[in-house]
Amino acid sequence: MRTCFSFFIVIMLGFIANGEIVSRNVEYKQGEAVLEGLAVYDSAIQGRRPAVLVVHQWKGLGGYEKKRAEMLARLGYNVFAADIYGKGIRPQSVQDAAKEAGKYKNDRALLRARVRAALEVLAGDERTDPKRIAAIGYCFGGTTVLELARSGTDVAGVVSFHGGLSSPAPADAKNIKAKVVALHGADDPNVPPKEVAAFEEEMRQGSVDWQLVAYGGAVHSFTDWNAGNDNSKGAAYNERADHRSWEAMKQFFSELFK
Amino acid sequence: MRTCFSFFIVIMLGFIANGEIVSRNVEYKQGEAVLEGLAVYDSAIQGRRPAVLVVHQWKGLGGYEKKRAEMLARLGYNVFAADIYGKGIRPQSVQDAAKEAGKYKNDRALLRARVRAALEVLAGDERTDPKRIAAIGYCFGGTTVLELARSGTDVAGVVSFHGGLSSPAPADAKNIKAKVVALHGADDPNVPPKEVAAFEEEMRQGSVDWQLVAYGGAVHSFTDWNAGNDNSKGAAYNERADHRSWEAMKQFFSELFK
Repeated sequence: MRTCFSFFIVIMLGFIANGEIVSRNVEYKQGEAVLEGLAVYDSAIQGRRPAVLVVHQWKGLGGYEKKRAEMLARLGYNVFAADIYGKGIRPQSVQDAAKEAGKYKNDRALLRARVRAALEVLAGDERTDPKRIAAIGYCFGGTTVLELARSGTDVAGVVSFHGGLSSPAPADAKNIKAKVVALHGADDPNVPPKEVAAFEEEMRQGSVDWQLVAYGGAVHSFTDWNAGNDNSKGAAYNERADHRSWEAMKQFFSELFK
Repeated sequence: MRTCFSFFIVIMLGFIANGEIVSRNVEYKQGEAVLEGLAVYDSAIQGRRPAVLVVHQWKGLGGYEKKRAEMLARLGYNVFAADIYGKGIRPQSVQDAAKEAGKYKNDRALLRARVRAALEVLAGDERTDPKRIAAIGYCFGGTTVLELARSGTDVAGVVSFHGGLSSPAPADAKNIKAKVVALHGADDPNVPPKEVAAFEEEMRQGSVDWQLVAYGGAVHSFTDWNAGNDNSKGAAYNERADHRSWEAMKQFFSELFK
């Protein structure tokens, strides 16, 4: 009965804590570059809590990432959505996005510096329990959180949603301390089987704690509700894979933050 | 507050329902063959409920499968542990187990008949909601539940834990109506990358609803607590992958049976 009552209290707190989701822009710097991320949290939760860094797709931090950050804040996390590109740099066209993302994919040292700058903002926040931080990313952001792990940072875990899995320096996997989860569309033409196999071998050689989930019928961008539903375009929303991958992430977090 | 109170009631019911786990041997037949499975359920739960068929490893139905069946019964499922080999046929040595399993792996029609006979027992049980049945299997049993799916049965879903993934008739995947989950040790020497790739292609060509999870650092038998912990033997228990795969199964069931 006592156990029941404790459960009851926990549930009540859960209800109370489902308060207002607050989000505010945060300027920060990496070197001389001015960046503008988004801090998101549930104002009803008191004190430090597990925290999640969210890294954006190739068009930069926008409405999609804000929505994901809010979803995470509603789960009780203190969230910071990173800005890798810089304040005001939000490419609109596919061509510009590819160019901007390419700048960082081809300069992994810069990419690491940018994502680590965002991590520092989150780790230093008064609401963050610095021992319980994870990072997730979508598409370009998936690649970015893997790079964060390869840089040897001590976040508890990273999750890539339909991110590119290749690395120019596979030996860096030996630096990885974070647990790694790759959530992958099995029909993603941007991340072909050869790249998946190389990633698995990289993780294996680095003795990483890793998992990869392949979702049948899913192509690139399978979590992005703005991506349409035409698989033949190589990028499309897939409700089933979106739901399953979100649940897989939640399960992973419950393991990390237990 | 009303919602809170409902939750409280649900939790109390949860506690009450966690009653005695009953298990009893059940004789049944496939053709002339006499088989002996194990029915397991929570006696405190009333009426029909979602049901799970459990298929054994290559040494036949034994203590391991009984324990898994009990774990599932504790989650509220009506469980039947199948006997593919026949009453009293429980090979003790690795050689005998390989020989017995080989008999069925090389005669998929017989394997299908045997597993379907077990499914009929479960589906016809007074505690089973016949519209909410899943099947899981370990090792040889993983192969078996995939074969059950390929036979076109309408179970809601199947889960293979470290099962062999190859099929002598990949075109049969077009018959599959069940959702398919393969939980795979990424370092399993019995199920090499080529076999995984062929399975993925089989599922793709059959337009199956499928997922595959690869667990880094896990070899064959990763859920079997009797398998020791020496990865170099090719089969070993892996607590991390065991826990994660069990949670993945639970998540899948919550999707199937919602």
